[in-house]
Amino acid sequence: MTAYETLERRFRRISALRDALGILTWDTETVMPAGAAESRSEQLAAVRLAAHELLTDPRVGGWLDEAEAGAGALDAWQAANLREMRRHHVHATAVPGDLVEANSRAVSRCEMVWRDARAGSDFAMLLPSLSEVLARQREIAAAKAEALGCAPYDALLDEYEPGARSQRVDALFAELEAFLPAFLPQVLDAQAARAPALEAEGPFPVEAQRALAVRLMGTVGFDFERGRLDVSLHPFCGGATGDVRITTRYDERDYTAALMGVLHETGHALYEHGRPAAWAGQPVGDARGMGLHESQSLLLEMQACRSRAFLDHAAPLMREAFNAEGLAWEPANLYRLYTRVRPGFIRVDADEVTYPAHIVLRYRLEKALIAGAMEAGDLPEAWNLGMKQLLGLDVPEDRVGCLQDIHWPGGAWGYFPTYTLGAMAAAQLFEAACTAEPDLLPGIARGDFGPLVSWLRTNVHAQGSFHPSTDALLTQVTGRPLDAEVYRRHLRRRYLEEA
Amino acid sequence: MTAYETLERRFRRISALRDALGILTWDTETVMPAGAAESRSEQLAAVRLAAHELLTDPRVGGWLDEAEAGAGALDAWQAANLREMRRHHVHATAVPGDLVEANSRAVSRCEMVWRDARAGSDFAMLLPSLSEVLARQREIAAAKAEALGCAPYDALLDEYEPGARSQRVDALFAELEAFLPAFLPQVLDAQAARAPALEAEGPFPVEAQRALAVRLMGTVGFDFERGRLDVSLHPFCGGATGDVRITTRYDERDYTAALMGVLHETGHALYEHGRPAAWAGQPVGDARGMGLHESQSLLLEMQACRSRAFLDHAAPLMREAFNAEGLAWEPANLYRLYTRVRPGFIRVDADEVTYPAHIVLRYRLEKALIAGAMEAGDLPEAWNLGMKQLLGLDVPEDRVGCLQDIHWPGGAWGYFPTYTLGAMAAAQLFEAACTAEPDLLPGIARGDFGPLVSWLRTNVHAQGSFHPSTDALLTQVTGRPLDAEVYRRHLRRRYLEEA
Repeated sequence: MTAYETLERRFRRISALRDALGILTWDTETVMPAGAAESRSEQLAAVRLAAHELLTDPRVGGWLDEAEAGAGALDAWQAANLREMRRHHVHATAVPGDLVEANSRAVSRCEMVWRDARAGSDFAMLLPSLSEVLARQREIAAAKAEALGCAPYDALLDEYEPGARSQRVDALFAELEAFLPAFLPQVLDAQAARAPALEAEGPFPVEAQRALAVRLMGTVGFDFERGRLDVSLHPFCGGATGDVRITTRYDERDYTAALMGVLHETGHALYEHGRPAAWAGQPVGDARGMGLHESQSLLLEMQACRSRAFLDHAAPLMREAFNAEGLAWEPANLYRLYTRVRPGFIRVDADEVTYPAHIVLRYRLEKALIAGAMEAGDLPEAWNLGMKQLLGLDVPEDRVGCLQDIHWPGGAWGYFPTYTLGAMAAAQLFEAACTAEPDLLPGIARGDFGPLVSWLRTNVHAQGSFHPSTDALLTQVTGRPLDAEVYRRHLRRRYLEEA
Repeated sequence: MTAYETLERRFRRISALRDALGILTWDTETVMPAGAAESRSEQLAAVRLAAHELLTDPRVGGWLDEAEAGAGALDAWQAANLREMRRHHVHATAVPGDLVEANSRAVSRCEMVWRDARAGSDFAMLLPSLSEVLARQREIAAAKAEALGCAPYDALLDEYEPGARSQRVDALFAELEAFLPAFLPQVLDAQAARAPALEAEGPFPVEAQRALAVRLMGTVGFDFERGRLDVSLHPFCGGATGDVRITTRYDERDYTAALMGVLHETGHALYEHGRPAAWAGQPVGDARGMGLHESQSLLLEMQACRSRAFLDHAAPLMREAFNAEGLAWEPANLYRLYTRVRPGFIRVDADEVTYPAHIVLRYRLEKALIAGAMEAGDLPEAWNLGMKQLLGLDVPEDRVGCLQDIHWPGGAWGYFPTYTLGAMAAAQLFEAACTAEPDLLPGIARGDFGPLVSWLRTNVHAQGSFHPSTDALLTQVTGRPLDAEVYRRHLRRRYLEEA
């Protein structure tokens, strides 16, 4: 067996363990009895440790060196696979074991405190454990920066968005920051000048919501032979290779959130289902990064399913599902409802016009925190100042301010920017798809997602991690790297011109 | 850290991986989408291999030697734990890695062929792959026999029933073989002389069956905070430490099988829930063996819940659950129904009088096959001869004969005797419990399982694997090792005297 073949075999084992983690995590969020939490964390830790040991095994470095020395014999996909193997190995070995463990303990503690701190809007309660997590994240960032040869914050970002650097993110976000503050009032004015969006009156029975969601998942092309739809407190797309499980939560008073939530997760699921089967179990067969993953959920939800074309198709199905009628169910009203813009405090409830402001704020703050230009204790003041500046809102309490997200307590630093990088990539990919497939939007209006999904399969999903970064893939597929102008164009068209 | 402490740490990791396997297996049988089977087998193999590598790590043997040399410093439970660690290590290291792999491949293939062969009643179709499994099992038996210092068949039996040897099983089964052939006609005569058992007419809606099952699980003491009830094709008790999951399948025409099936699995679950919490994750905290495990399910189902006392309590709940009335729902009739004896071809449908005959047959045959006194091709003839001799039945086709069970294709050789060892242990433990707790049966008649479960907790469940064998535990708890006479006494009382 060559060194490269030995590595393929090793990474197949690692991938299978990660898939097992995906199923265990799904179980934790959906069906696990409450009393099993402690036993479950032992299981997750044991499987994670087994995967980590397989990756950091001292022999792996030698195999990588040897395979790289003989890389001339590899084809382009094998070479890309080897590049990704090295990337995983660098990230895993950069951080000493005792720091991994210290961080893991700090994060477990902080997540637990966070639940109570958020409920009681008590930042002081969170501060000690959050400071501890921040200290560990700074150490991890420094260790990874040394291994990757980049700035500390960029070393964290690189794990979620391979190859991305903050200099580039700064430039892209600066374009949005220059655009949005003037754009938002225009949108709100235009909206005020139109008929208000009517909300249909419920209740909307859970079973009817679920049946409609399943029907529309089928329309979009979700493969129920290799996936499931379930209920969890926090919706997600998870599971394993060939077993893609999405979740939602239903509110009988309001069907709209669950429905678009399901379509959002279905976008993630299509990416997972479309990853290159020939490279299953290998790093090059994985999704390219969290930004591109989010682009697939946002493309389906925001670009495709909040379009007038889709709502023309879906309106009669909605009426049928809830046995309803009236003006609220007219496509024009549904479109107003599904593109309604309302600045608010909560990121996960934000519309696509104000969402970037939430991300820009978090990105600024976590960069400053990792760089040491700010301490955890400065967060509430800096947060509230930012919300005032970016969205003109006065945050009444930390519960709806800097305590709202689990990411920082949970140790996911450098993750936030991927949401908005994904939103921009979604606009750029959808525009390219519509250009390449003129029947795409008319198809969606007929309930035919074939042209869209087939284009995404070929150009995004089946590419796996063949390209070294999202920018490289976008350049290949759309002719240029991530371009904020396309996103601005999308927002102007939807919120000022078409509306 | 002492060698013993190092071992505790190592076995805690192994146990967590086994728990993860328990959850993944539950998922496979209950909720996994059909197309995910291949991905799932990769996950199971990867987690199994990780656990196997932790156990067979060359350092483990050294730690065991060192800990055994210093065993004087250990308390009784630690010493028992160390004894169990050695047992696991001997079993795991006795078989060379390439034989483990060859067996695993042979079993996967044979299980797959078996599904079709059984459906088509085509033994010739199964023969090549079954012969391959048998060949591997003989090699495994020989390797383990050398390591354990016992006969090859006993080395297989030892994995499921630690410390058991076929000489002892032969003697116990001989007592049943001497008793049952004359006893069965007496039972059938007595039954024919009584009013026939009336069967209530359905349909019995699944939701009503499930609600009744959940209610009775609650009565018995199943902890839903640390467990679940779900549906699967083949009922089982699985899951993980502190997360015990039982399954059943519902038939709307006949509620009786699912109900007793649930109570049977609840018996397994009580054992799992009652294992000593202080030794969770350690070998000494595990159940003592498959025979004792089966004793707990059979004790609850056969001894407690098919008793007249329980049916007095359950009859009104059944009527309420199905909104039913009539003679079929009288406790006396339910008792006749739940203790009906009908010799038949299928083991899993057998009553407790004829069940031992099914096991004796399989035990004889697998012993002869492992010893080389018989070949796989001889099975149909030998099987049919045995059924004629033991139950007086002419097997019409192999589908209901030697093709009915998955155990042999699945590589579980030496497992079958544990069913009947369990039935005998159940009778012996129940008799001891009733003697120790005079209020036990009257309690059950009132729906109070407290005295029974509390006695089992103390005397069986919380003992884990402290005792080196089922016989040792029974001697401690009932004053003598497994005793066929107690089982005979139970059968005579229930089927000749009380009936």
